Amino acid sequence: MSAPAPPTVTAALLVIGDEILSGRTKDKNIGYVAEYLTAVGIELREVRVVPDVEDEIVAALDALRRRYTYLFTTGGIGPTHDDITADCVAAAFGVEIAEDPRAIAAMLERYRPEELNEARRRMARIPAGADLIENPISKAPGFRIGNVIVMAGVPTIMQAMLDAVAPSLATGAKVRAVTVDARGLPEGVYAAGLGQIAAGCPGVTIGSYPSFSAAGISNQIVVRSKDETALEAAVAAVLALVERLHADRTPV
Amino acid sequence: MSAPAPPTVTAALLVIGDEILSGRTKDKNIGYVAEYLTAVGIELREVRVVPDVEDEIVAALDALRRRYTYLFTTGGIGPTHDDITADCVAAAFGVEIAEDPRAIAAMLERYRPEELNEARRRMARIPAGADLIENPISKAPGFRIGNVIVMAGVPTIMQAMLDAVAPSLATGAKVRAVTVDARGLPEGVYAAGLGQIAAGCPGVTIGSYPSFSAAGISNQIVVRSKDETALEAAVAAVLALVERLHADRTPV
Repeated sequence: MSAPAPPTVTAALLVIGDEILSGRTKDKNIGYVAEYLTAVGIELREVRVVPDVEDEIVAALDALRRRYTYLFTTGGIGPTHDDITADCVAAAFGVEIAEDPRAIAAMLERYRPEELNEARRRMARIPAGADLIENPISKAPGFRIGNVIVMAGVPTIMQAMLDAVAPSLATGAKVRAVTVDARGLPEGVYAAGLGQIAAGCPGVTIGSYPSFSAAGISNQIVVRSKDETALEAAVAAVLALVERLHADRTPV
Repeated sequence: MSAPAPPTVTAALLVIGDEILSGRTKDKNIGYVAEYLTAVGIELREVRVVPDVEDEIVAALDALRRRYTYLFTTGGIGPTHDDITADCVAAAFGVEIAEDPRAIAAMLERYRPEELNEARRRMARIPAGADLIENPISKAPGFRIGNVIVMAGVPTIMQAMLDAVAPSLATGAKVRAVTVDARGLPEGVYAAGLGQIAAGCPGVTIGSYPSFSAAGISNQIVVRSKDETALEAAVAAVLALVERLHADRTPV
């Protein structure tokens, strides 16, 4: 008997902040979180970006946390009036939110007691029942409640929080990806053959990613699967397709 | 009597593609579309990223197109098997999809007739009733049906399509933004004062965006409004706050 297949672990990412929607700040967290989760065996299935508006944040929290194994959020946990993520999470879970002595203790590693004014103490307000996520950079913690993981929006801090929380997360089978260079072939030349391969390879997803530049077309075909045998068979078929089509186009 | 206020025109962006969720491709369209729409007077209110899965795409199309003035989509309109956006849009609108002679004509500006194989002709499949959006780069068009604007995922092509469609869109009052440098002040020092200003300035949104680097803290305060008078008053108040707090911290 073979070992049981590892479970599929899924996630969504909720990016919170007017500044992303206005274009003022260019998000750097989506791509980082996507790559990180893929590498540890968690499938990112959806991303949403919403403004600093309580009803919007709560609605997105509720929709996403019920649907995926984990929901990660970035943004909105600083000390200013537009930082309302923690309150929205408490509202979504229907729990109280109050100043957390553990968060105050963490912040006292950075701030003198007289520096912990009301605004900074806002960063220590944590929904009841949450576990803190360490912030080695600026000390004000993130937190996890249920399957929701609340992180900062500043990329360096978000990345540190992701490192801190990752060891506690369930993970599934890792998706392995192999990229095949299409050797200058246009998509329209290999699309039919690629579609046939994709249709004949269950458990494998095959994507084609075009890229145009002054130097010409440099398309990439990406084959992804959790099943090593299926992956290798699909990659071999794609390589053979590219080889054949390339030979057809190369004058001999 | 003053002129009536311009209408508020809203939008959502739906990014379609497994490659964004796996982290393989780092999205470059969200920030571009956000900045572009803000500049022309359309408020981007939500972004979603979904995989190349019909049910997910159709559900997101339906949720977002009903809620905002416009829904823009990027990705999934190429010639390969994973390009299913046009079919999903047709399904969402409940209309037929077929090869469009206008799209074929556009593509014949680039391809010889014998090069228009079945895969490439897939790019000419357009939902019934849609208007085409010109693609000056690779010719296969985008399209608009109702309030949904369907664009390519390749950034250069997406940008050209946005330029092509923008003149036909309704726009509202432009939001003007003024950035005030916090002059090295930490957020926790100005948060209380900033919150008071925000509470006293209806029609103005004020955001604080922290940035940490080896050189220290360089936070920015962004004041945004459609109302020039309200904007100027809020900016003056923020500048005065920063000036006062900075003077308090600077030894004389």
